[in-house]
This record gives sequence, structure tokens and C-alpha cells, in this order.
Amino acid sequence: MRSSGLTVAVAGATGAVGEEMLAILEERDFPCDEVRCLASVRSEGKRVEFRGRKLVVNVLTADSFEDVDVALFSAGGARSLEFAPAAVRSGAVVVDNSSAFRMDPETPLVVPEVNPHAISRHKGIIANPNCSTIQMVVALKPLHDVARIRRIVVSTYQSVSGTGKKAMDELARQTVNLLNFKEIERKVYPHQIAFNCLPHIDSFLENGYTKEEMKMVNETAKILDPAIKVTATTVRIPVVNGHSESVNVEFERPYDLDELRTLLARSPGLVVEDEPARTLYPLAIRASGQDPVYVGRLRRDFSCPNALNFWCVADNLRKGAALNTVQIARELIGRGLVRTP
Amino acid sequence: MRSSGLTVAVAGATGAVGEEMLAILEERDFPCDEVRCLASVRSEGKRVEFRGRKLVVNVLTADSFEDVDVALFSAGGARSLEFAPAAVRSGAVVVDNSSAFRMDPETPLVVPEVNPHAISRHKGIIANPNCSTIQMVVALKPLHDVARIRRIVVSTYQSVSGTGKKAMDELARQTVNLLNFKEIERKVYPHQIAFNCLPHIDSFLENGYTKEEMKMVNETAKILDPAIKVTATTVRIPVVNGHSESVNVEFERPYDLDELRTLLARSPGLVVEDEPARTLYPLAIRASGQDPVYVGRLRRDFSCPNALNFWCVADNLRKGAALNTVQIARELIGRGLVRTP
Repeated sequence: MRSSGLTVAVAGATGAVGEEMLAILEERDFPCDEVRCLASVRSEGKRVEFRGRKLVVNVLTADSFEDVDVALFSAGGARSLEFAPAAVRSGAVVVDNSSAFRMDPETPLVVPEVNPHAISRHKGIIANPNCSTIQMVVALKPLHDVARIRRIVVSTYQSVSGTGKKAMDELARQTVNLLNFKEIERKVYPHQIAFNCLPHIDSFLENGYTKEEMKMVNETAKILDPAIKVTATTVRIPVVNGHSESVNVEFERPYDLDELRTLLARSPGLVVEDEPARTLYPLAIRASGQDPVYVGRLRRDFSCPNALNFWCVADNLRKGAALNTVQIARELIGRGLVRTP
Repeated sequence: MRSSGLTVAVAGATGAVGEEMLAILEERDFPCDEVRCLASVRSEGKRVEFRGRKLVVNVLTADSFEDVDVALFSAGGARSLEFAPAAVRSGAVVVDNSSAFRMDPETPLVVPEVNPHAISRHKGIIANPNCSTIQMVVALKPLHDVARIRRIVVSTYQSVSGTGKKAMDELARQTVNLLNFKEIERKVYPHQIAFNCLPHIDSFLENGYTKEEMKMVNETAKILDPAIKVTATTVRIPVVNGHSESVNVEFERPYDLDELRTLLARSPGLVVEDEPARTLYPLAIRASGQDPVYVGRLRRDFSCPNALNFWCVADNLRKGAALNTVQIARELIGRGLVRTP
């Protein structure tokens, strides 16, 4: 590959999303000469594979970003708040996967298939939306363009990988213990997640919603259109990876179902799987490890004029996090919005 | 117990629901002197426990119902169509758990907490609604009484016990195999159910909906109010027993959230679990084995005037099937609608 002269930092390189970021940078031949892996003290000295070499993980500090052009953050909101401004001061553009800056009016919140233009007004930080929002807005964007969305009622079926590696371990351990008639331990989730489902993701707010639910409400408005009203119920289910969503959309205008299906099939980042007769519809186990957002089960909602139901599935670690972050970084470079040699 | 002189038949006595029926007849000291266990040839001669005795399972035929007062059917729609009329001709009142007669205008479709009055117009058969409908209408009934429901958007999280014992085995077997890195077999469901979720319950119809989804639409209208519009997405998740539902309700009238919560808490068959700060909300693993319908996560839907979101969980084998059937049978006796000695 030709030298680009660019250096990318990955903050949170040993986490579930960080590992996925490194994999995607490599898969997509990302135009950078150096990748700097950063993480907490706990991971100091670990080695991670990248382009056939072992990269040493260094501790994330305010001094980590000298000569870094793009810093991809996925180390939790507290670390983003602490270190993203330092990265910007060092001259890097930050693409942040935490919720820390998402609703900051100064910070663009970007899904490249939906609002790539927002990138250009960045002031050093670009926020990556929440996983459950990203996959939904990728599917909604073409629909909104033709029929104008008025209201969305969404219920989610979210995998444990969104919580991180410890949650994936907890699901596996609880499952094994239950199958062996042993006591289970609850460390990550407040209740048993194996063979159960929890209507509780992130913490509860005064209004009765969880933060996760309000992310879907507020981020959709910011990314797609402030006129769109969303109500959400977000639920954790015992799936390892891949979020599924049951989406009900009310449009302002009448629509033709076959036209919408065709439109979705040719829209960027989307794959339509919608042949019920062949039991073809999006599935978490099939979306896991893949880049697209899958949509299916498209059908007219007979309870309301101009309304539609569909089912939407994506790999929450990839399109829901790491891939979208890398796509934003790629757009930054393509638009000449980072220091280029 | 005092002799009632009544004989109850259980058709499908060795299935997941049939076993639950026998357990509930015993738990509730059901006023009958004899229980006759019927099933297919495959189960002939099996013995089932009831009131400390072993009852022999006989083959279900048209001649099985002599002297039977109440026949509880849970042997599949085909067997109900074949043998329920014979039971009626023998003088029994049939309470049928299959979908065979539910939408027949001559057949009452009953949830005792919701429309017990419908029982009295029976012509020999009373239908038990679908599991996913029953728990929802128990929760909706008090809400409809005070605020008039206009429209419902529901997404379900349904356990495998609703499919039967073979599906429970399939979930366990697939889970064990996946944890041991072995190939899995798919016999009951068209796709892997372990660590996955399937937006597909029962078969698909021409309109893009599944039969399960249309049951929620049509049965809710028949039981509660034909003016109520419902749209549903029904999803199978890897939970052993207990269905969960994310329910969005639009009312005609304004409501007070605390009043609705209080109303639900004192309504029959309902338990409110709604203290998010203590992570108290309904859970499938806790509802399993219990009689009530649990509701929680009650919160105003800010996307639409007079709308509400809630989360509703029940044991689909009990309130969703066997318990509701036994409750109907108890109502029949209480109202003197079967032959009494």
C-alpha cells in the first residue's frame, strides 16, 4: 500500500469494539502508516495483531496523541471526556464512540450513509451514534426521503456484546451453569441474562425511560430530522452478537410497499432479506461479522394510515460501533479534513 | 373434598400445556371427581400423576367423552376440529386451547378477567385465546375501561415452551452443542434458536404477517373491543418459558400515569412490578410457574398524545394456556353452564 503519512490512534484497543476497529482498519486497507494502540493501565504491554505485526498497547494519557491524525475512541464516556480534548489539542481529529459528546450541539453526530455532510462542520470531535440508533437510521433514511417519517415506535432485541466482553462471558457462564443445574453469578447485569430478557439497557432516568431508549429518541432526531418523533423500548436478550429491532414507522405520505422495498435494496449500507415464504428474514446470527444493515419483514401496518412495520438487524460491534467509526475517519480523510502529508 | 359428581377430560394430557392443566386442576382443587386423560396413540398407556394417583392415558377418539362434563382440549387444531364436535354431542362442554374455533362467530373467545359474560352464549365450545393475546388483554382491559384504547403497537419476546416440549429440547440441545463447538440440528424451528431470535412464529400469510401476529390483531378485537386496532411483530427468543411483550397503547382520552398504575395494581390477574430504581420490572424467569400477568416499565409515550408504553410478562403455559382454560371451566361450573349433579 502507498504511504499516506497518516497515524491513527485507537483508544480502548483491547475492548470488544477496539478489537473490531483494528480488524476493520486492516480489512479495509485503511490509508494509514501507523496505528497506535492505547488502553487503560490494566492492558499495558499487551500485544495486538495488526497487518501481520504485533503492536504493543500503551497507556492512554493526555500525551498519547503527538503526531496522531485521527484518534478513534472507544474507551468509555469518562475517558473520552478526559482525553479527547487533549487529542484535539495535539492536532488529531477524534471520532468518539462513547455517548459523551453526542448531544453536544458543537459536535456532529454522523452515520456516513445518512448525514455525511455534517462531518465538515467538526471542531475536532465527531461523535459516533449509539449502536441501536445507527442501524435504525440507515434503514430509515431512504424511507424518510420518499415518504417523510412522522413517528417511530421501536422495540429492540439487543445482544450482550454491546455491553462488552465481560457480558459475553457472563452469558456463556450463566448458560453453562444453568445447563448443569448450578447456581449462577450476576456481575454485569442486575438479573440473569441466560434464557431471559431484560427490559433495561443503561441506567434509568426520571421520566421512566432508560438512557438507551432516550438515545434512540434524541440521536435519531439529531442525525435524521428533528421533526421525527421516536418512542423506544430497549431490551437485552441472550444473543451473543447482533442487534435486532422491530420498527413501526408512520409516514406523512402514502407509500407503495414494493417501491419501498426496491428503494431499500439499492440504498447504501443496506441489504434486504424479505422472502418469508423461504423463511428468509434478517437474523442476528447471520448479521454477526457482516458490515450491512439487514432489513426484512416489510409489511403494511393496517392499524394506521401510511404506516409500515419492518425488522432490522446489524452487527452492533461493526456497523453499530467500529465500522461506523472507521467510515467516519475515512470520510474525514477523503474530504481532506485531517492533516494530510 | 366434597363430591361434585363432575368428570373432566383433558385431551392432549401428555403435552406441555396438558401437563400444566393437570397441575392446575390439582392445585386449585378443581371441583371434579374424575379426570380422564386422553392423548394420541403415541402416548397410549403412559401414566400421569394426579391427586396422588397414577392416571392411565387413553387414546383420544370420538367415543372418549361419555359422561364427561367438561373437556379441556390442547391437542392441536386438527384434533380439536375432529373430536371437539364429538365431545359436544356426548354432552360435554369443550374449552379448546387451539386456534380452530377462535374466530368462529358462534364460539365465545374468553379471558375470564376480561369478558366472562361471553361464556354464557356458548353452544358447546368455548375457545381459549392465543397465549400472546391473553396476557396483553388482561393488562389492557382496565386501561380500556378508563381511557378507551384506539391503537396498539406490540412486539413480543416469546419463549420456546409455546411451541411445545420438542422446542424446549431443541433450545437446550442447540445451546449445549454451540457451547461445545459442535454442529447443531434444526428440527422444530427453521433457523438456530439458541443465542438468536426469530421474527417468525406460526406460518406466514399473504399479507406479510404471520398467523401469530394476526391472532393478536383479531383476537384482541373479538375479546376486548372491535374498535381497537392492533399491529404486531411476534418474535421467538431463546427463553425456555414466559412470554414478554413491549406494548405501545394510544388512548382516546388523556390519562394520569399514577392513576393507571394504581388501577392496574388492583385489577384481577395483574401484578404491577414497576420500580426501575430497584431494577424491579417483569421478567420471564420470574413469571414462569406463576399465575398472574406482570406489568411494569409504565411510562408516557412522548411521541404521541395520550399514548403509553409498558412491558408485560406472563407464563405462557399457565395464564397463556392451561390456567386460562381451567379458569373458563371453573366459570362454566360457577354459572351452572355444565351438567351439574
